[in-house]
Amino acid sequence: MTRIACCQLAPVFGDVDGNVARSVEAVRDAAARGARIIVLPELMTTGYVFADADEARSLAEPVDGPSVTAWRRLADELDVVVVGGFCELGDDGRVYNSAAVLVPQKPAVVHRKTHLWDRERLVFTAGDAAPPVVETLHGRIAPLICYELEFPEWVRIPALAGADLIVAPGNWPDLPRPDGERPGEVIRVQADASINRVAIAVCDRVGTERGVDWTSGSLIVDADGWPLAMADYTSSEVTTLVADVDLLDSRTKKLAGLSDAFADRRTDLYPGG
Amino acid sequence: MTRIACCQLAPVFGDVDGNVARSVEAVRDAAARGARIIVLPELMTTGYVFADADEARSLAEPVDGPSVTAWRRLADELDVVVVGGFCELGDDGRVYNSAAVLVPQKPAVVHRKTHLWDRERLVFTAGDAAPPVVETLHGRIAPLICYELEFPEWVRIPALAGADLIVAPGNWPDLPRPDGERPGEVIRVQADASINRVAIAVCDRVGTERGVDWTSGSLIVDADGWPLAMADYTSSEVTTLVADVDLLDSRTKKLAGLSDAFADRRTDLYPGG
Repeated sequence: MTRIACCQLAPVFGDVDGNVARSVEAVRDAAARGARIIVLPELMTTGYVFADADEARSLAEPVDGPSVTAWRRLADELDVVVVGGFCELGDDGRVYNSAAVLVPQKPAVVHRKTHLWDRERLVFTAGDAAPPVVETLHGRIAPLICYELEFPEWVRIPALAGADLIVAPGNWPDLPRPDGERPGEVIRVQADASINRVAIAVCDRVGTERGVDWTSGSLIVDADGWPLAMADYTSSEVTTLVADVDLLDSRTKKLAGLSDAFADRRTDLYPGG
Repeated sequence: MTRIACCQLAPVFGDVDGNVARSVEAVRDAAARGARIIVLPELMTTGYVFADADEARSLAEPVDGPSVTAWRRLADELDVVVVGGFCELGDDGRVYNSAAVLVPQKPAVVHRKTHLWDRERLVFTAGDAAPPVVETLHGRIAPLICYELEFPEWVRIPALAGADLIVAPGNWPDLPRPDGERPGEVIRVQADASINRVAIAVCDRVGTERGVDWTSGSLIVDADGWPLAMADYTSSEVTTLVADVDLLDSRTKKLAGLSDAFADRRTDLYPGG
């Protein structure tokens, strides 16, 4: 069993120093509670609701900037895996919505969001690489960022590549749903997990930002898609979800009897793309 | 709005004549309630739990056999679309787990299940064709059969081909789930719908058969994946679900703002297969 935490924080727009401090405090608290893999929200250190590309660029930082450096040091010091979203200024001069995976004593591994939600396409360059599958002491983890979870073709890629856990920083804007229903994003994460028999930990955020409210929908599901920990959607309080997850269970793709989630795919019939 | 019905019946194993009669009565009742598209369970007229391939063959019938003929006549008489599962003896001499779509005054359209659950692979030949998208007065409908709904690559095919409604005969064996959770199959259907913005109507069955119990999980969801009608999982009574569905809503793939469920796919990055 591996203890996993999702720190559902409230980034303050533009306050990079303050947001780094908030994330550091939350990671320390989660590690003290025994978490070995700790997930932070998307764009944790800048906030999300950029007015335009120039504003995002003014707040972007390279992989060796203050956000990822702080998380790398924490990973080393606390011997935990940290996953967090940040606004990346790439070596190529472009601005990306990225996630960093910090494994103790290893260089940062970065994934750039490929599927951009709504106005993000006016702000960021889309990534064009599949999510990395990162070896850790606890198993193989792969980062996906928010809207990427809504494309089953994309979730398949790290799952087929052997991920035991998908770690997903997110900022889920609060969309309408019928009374009594879970957020659609939560339902789709449950499906993503069970279809691939892979555990998933999503870290959403709280805190109204420039008029946008968030779902507060962080959750940790097992390889059958059953929730091990779920945030209270009705609360906008900062909170940290913690769950103990059997990551090795993700290596069995057997569903029941002779059925196997991967072996039963009819790749002979699926079109490319 | 189009009224859709799912007749969650209790086929009796091997009693083809009786099962045809049960399905005819249920279709008549649903049509009398105003349904224009009526979905029946998988393998409605034979039952599901075949001991082996020989037993299935002994009960299989061609497309012009009694089951599909009865449904075709009903479709013509009542001016309704009927979709039902049957054990097909193919022109090629093979036995398939098939669904027939009967549009009034048209020849039967047949889909053969491609993804075979558990021991079905010992009984049936797997189909190797994508589900047809069938034009009706009410919109374009595409049949999928049960376990096919669990493969998002496969659900994408009729959705991208323009289906407004996926009609799915099913026999969902009752699998364990945590207290308070919907069946995993239901969650995955909700995800299938919202990911593709396509309405889905699944007709499950009831009635213990050779020791197998069923989920009783029939449901009709809109293009956002929200349930319009759901069966009571705690009941094993025969029942017919009815819901009025705006099938034209499936033609808008817009999710919010600039986001579009289809246009936002990164087909440049998805591998074939």
